[in-house]
Amino acid sequence: MPLIYVNGKIIPAREAVVSAMDRGFLFGDAVYEVIKVDRGVPLFFLHHLLRLANSLHEARIPAPPFPAREVLRYLAAMKGRSGSLYLEISRGAHPRNHLPPAGLRPTVMLFLQDHHFHTAAERERGYALHAVRDIRWHRCNIKATSLMGAILCKLEARDRGADEVVFYDARGRFTEAGSTNFYAVRDGTVFTHPLGGAILKGVTCTLLKEFARKDGIRWSERAPRLAEMRSWDEAFVTGTLTGVMPVFTVDRTRISRRMGPVTRRLLEAFKREEAEAFAAWPDERRQLLK
Amino acid sequence: MPLIYVNGKIIPAREAVVSAMDRGFLFGDAVYEVIKVDRGVPLFFLHHLLRLANSLHEARIPAPPFPAREVLRYLAAMKGRSGSLYLEISRGAHPRNHLPPAGLRPTVMLFLQDHHFHTAAERERGYALHAVRDIRWHRCNIKATSLMGAILCKLEARDRGADEVVFYDARGRFTEAGSTNFYAVRDGTVFTHPLGGAILKGVTCTLLKEFARKDGIRWSERAPRLAEMRSWDEAFVTGTLTGVMPVFTVDRTRISRRMGPVTRRLLEAFKREEAEAFAAWPDERRQLLK
Repeated sequence: MPLIYVNGKIIPAREAVVSAMDRGFLFGDAVYEVIKVDRGVPLFFLHHLLRLANSLHEARIPAPPFPAREVLRYLAAMKGRSGSLYLEISRGAHPRNHLPPAGLRPTVMLFLQDHHFHTAAERERGYALHAVRDIRWHRCNIKATSLMGAILCKLEARDRGADEVVFYDARGRFTEAGSTNFYAVRDGTVFTHPLGGAILKGVTCTLLKEFARKDGIRWSERAPRLAEMRSWDEAFVTGTLTGVMPVFTVDRTRISRRMGPVTRRLLEAFKREEAEAFAAWPDERRQLLK
Repeated sequence: MPLIYVNGKIIPAREAVVSAMDRGFLFGDAVYEVIKVDRGVPLFFLHHLLRLANSLHEARIPAPPFPAREVLRYLAAMKGRSGSLYLEISRGAHPRNHLPPAGLRPTVMLFLQDHHFHTAAERERGYALHAVRDIRWHRCNIKATSLMGAILCKLEARDRGADEVVFYDARGRFTEAGSTNFYAVRDGTVFTHPLGGAILKGVTCTLLKEFARKDGIRWSERAPRLAEMRSWDEAFVTGTLTGVMPVFTVDRTRISRRMGPVTRRLLEAFKREEAEAFAAWPDERRQLLK
């Protein structure tokens, strides 16, 4: 990560700082996006920008001037590298007070970080999940940096040797995983938690739901339940950096021993979506810069 | 706020920065304390340090060397000023990954900020509260900087013209207020939510509970309930900066028109506690520096 963008300046990472009075640092009062970058191309860029706009709106952070041009300027400086692009917008800096004064200037930060994207072989090995009661706030539809709840649960999952944590609510319904959406498959139907405050609206999830609709895969927004785990044929998680990843165990419950047919169809479809997004980028970029 | 302490350095506030890669900024992955400082004296200092140690432990942030000496060094540089002392410890800085690497060095920040402490006349005017469903995480016993939930609810309360927000859970039980503990009084008994993940263990609350025990005021950790509001004789909130503050209305429900006798007894007791803490400080300070 040689260069970071902070408030219009592109500077060496080790020099990149924010005010100690930034509300991102004092209050976790910031929203963010993570975008997969393939050889300089930010995949599903508009989906992420739209979600960012929604997070800003829900968090009542006045949106700074449309950041697309700035992202493209930063990516140009990164000369076609691949990795994960992180974009954070905080409410700004001022002396500490929960209530922000009017007219704050949001802080904008961007950086492209190396990322090990899962190989095909790793996907065949699947994930082991650790299930915990969801302790996070009830506005998970806002992609906010107030993430200590997720961090503590991810630490617990790591201690148990799991690849990821998955949350369930007071009624035993799975909401989502630590940084991915969560799905169970039974009798050919994909089950996942409905949209709302309990989960983030995943970009990968949105694309797969659309594919499922077109391709005749049954898709139900009835949350998978703890009590039904043994009846599942498959389970998987999806996310921007994770892609489509089969889940083989949840705690000590074995879901499957290999990638199931529905998961595989969705994985293949998603790879095609990514390839199409990559190919369409020059046109999309031209439109954005108009 | 002319000077800020960051990682051992005491520098002018406008120069105070933290790494853009600090987990406090990326994840709200930090804990904090706010201490009332009266003419250079940090009131109930040990209570706050103990709670900070508990927050660090629960958040699994390795405690940096006992910060008491550093706080005293910073306060000495602030030459006897009064205000609110803010102390934040984040898990440290490194390239973004939810899971922190081993051996991170926590970031320590301190600053003394001017604060308008309520006058006696303001206390006689009481607070109007706005009640909202508690959307925050379920580990409010950790005083963490992942505060967007509280911020959004405080903004909503401000929009309604209220002085503070108060939260209730799915079963209509009041948990706590935005940055204070919440209490109702009925037939001479003080009711407040039991300790646990739903509330922060308030320093002021702890001191008042002890006073109530000694002075024969009945104290119950059965949460006040939405459905019972009209039966309350008094309500109040307490906090380090707020002190003891009567509550006269919750939304459109009138609780009382003036400060009630139980609230007043607790307010007077707390003022004595503060005066005693102030007087005891030279000795306490000597002990700390031994």
